[in-house]
Amino acid sequence: MDSTKEASVTDLKRPREEEDDNAVVAAASMETDNSVNGDEKKEPACFSSVIPGWFSEMSPMWPGEAHSLKVEKILFQGKSDYQDVIVFQSATYGKVLVLDGVIQLTERDECAYQEMITHLPLCSIPNPKKVLVIGGGDGGVLREVARHASVEQIDMCEIDKMVVDVSKQFFPNVAIGYEDPRVNLVIGDGVAFLKNAAEGSYDAVIVDSSDPIGPAKELFEKPFFQSVARALRPGGVVCTQAESLWLHMDIIEDIVSNCREIFKGSVNYAWTSVPTYPRHVQ
Amino acid sequence: MDSTKEASVTDLKRPREEEDDNAVVAAASMETDNSVNGDEKKEPACFSSVIPGWFSEMSPMWPGEAHSLKVEKILFQGKSDYQDVIVFQSATYGKVLVLDGVIQLTERDECAYQEMITHLPLCSIPNPKKVLVIGGGDGGVLREVARHASVEQIDMCEIDKMVVDVSKQFFPNVAIGYEDPRVNLVIGDGVAFLKNAAEGSYDAVIVDSSDPIGPAKELFEKPFFQSVARALRPGGVVCTQAESLWLHMDIIEDIVSNCREIFKGSVNYAWTSVPTYPRHVQ
Repeated sequence: MDSTKEASVTDLKRPREEEDDNAVVAAASMETDNSVNGDEKKEPACFSSVIPGWFSEMSPMWPGEAHSLKVEKILFQGKSDYQDVIVFQSATYGKVLVLDGVIQLTERDECAYQEMITHLPLCSIPNPKKVLVIGGGDGGVLREVARHASVEQIDMCEIDKMVVDVSKQFFPNVAIGYEDPRVNLVIGDGVAFLKNAAEGSYDAVIVDSSDPIGPAKELFEKPFFQSVARALRPGGVVCTQAESLWLHMDIIEDIVSNCREIFKGSVNYAWTSVPTYPRHVQ
Repeated sequence: MDSTKEASVTDLKRPREEEDDNAVVAAASMETDNSVNGDEKKEPACFSSVIPGWFSEMSPMWPGEAHSLKVEKILFQGKSDYQDVIVFQSATYGKVLVLDGVIQLTERDECAYQEMITHLPLCSIPNPKKVLVIGGGDGGVLREVARHASVEQIDMCEIDKMVVDVSKQFFPNVAIGYEDPRVNLVIGDGVAFLKNAAEGSYDAVIVDSSDPIGPAKELFEKPFFQSVARALRPGGVVCTQAESLWLHMDIIEDIVSNCREIFKGSVNYAWTSVPTYPRHVQ
């Protein structure tokens, strides 16, 4: 651990992605910031195509199955430069953040993902001081990183400002992570950020990404992990969401294989249970 | 372990139950054993009420959410003395067994549940010889118990013969458990069976039950666990499905509390990931 770079590959979150058959048709823009209520005509396809009054998550990433949540009220619909953004109040899972038709977090179960992807790496090295978060626009990983007293600096690079703004507006208990004075938020491309990062500068890198098909595609590829390896100090640790062992074994194998090649330390896959991630994808 | 009875409470499978809003209307009887294809008028509500051509699992046990599988063909619909029984070919999870509107197993992921509820208890004591399975009509637990060479006798008490017959017909890789010569199958009430079992006669009892609302209600209550304790030898082990830690903490607390009172050894809750059990219920 002290003399090698270590990768802990953690499968925690399944991705958002472009939905072929269930594209989200967003109506409101971020500028207006208006709540959009249940007008049938304005509702995105994922709300109206399956169960009236329910949100259904269907994707070519998990063909032949769908997970649905009962909607009480649509609180926000927007289209950023990168993706469609929706927030709704569900009947039983609290407020829900949806990007490109895929649930990113619910108030009821977000803790499982955030804690897993953060404390697993930060507890695997002694006294992490400088931490980089790639993605994680909702702020939940920041919230968990901030609980580590040894941490002195938390850099974060999120590509989509709308996700940050929406989280601050609708998920204060998650976005509270931004309030920590150690946080430096950069809105930009995580791949470019890492390329420009000083060599050996981070104790830990947490990649809280979406899926390998959409805008986060590069975050699953070898050059990205090479950049991570360069930015980590010897003995540093990286943790990335790595898809579901029930659905995406090919992706996991690629990540593990790339990481075994690039990092000198141990490479492991871990998972936890997040009800609103399909197939218990972790 | 040698001088006390031990309960290992394992949360593995969520229950079937009566569905208020989505009652299954079964058409074919077991006697005819006919395949029933997708005639809209004959389809049970759970096939047609949500996504046409999809099976949707909705229940008051998990209000406000639904899990849906795309149906290729309905292979069997029947109504036993205890419940509605459906088998369908899904698009991506193989054949699926549904009791009272709730998925019991799919060919794709049944291994996770069967292995967890079986090997956890059987590997926690040395050389189990006499094992009792309550429920488990699909035969999958039998299949896993049979892999333990030390086991000499496997008694099983399943209340619903239709589940056994349907499993043998449609799920040969699961029902293969019945072919082991050590298996003694009794069709009957598990509660009564245990009351009549000889005291201290089993090394392990595995309760592969459905939910605490339907016909399996008694399997979650104190008198049942008292019968289990009586039937177990000192140092024996019991493992029961105990619902989801995301949804049913009250049920889990009751089971653990009752077991701590009744059994002298350790009482633990464990879980695993089964994609088609809702909320990663284990």
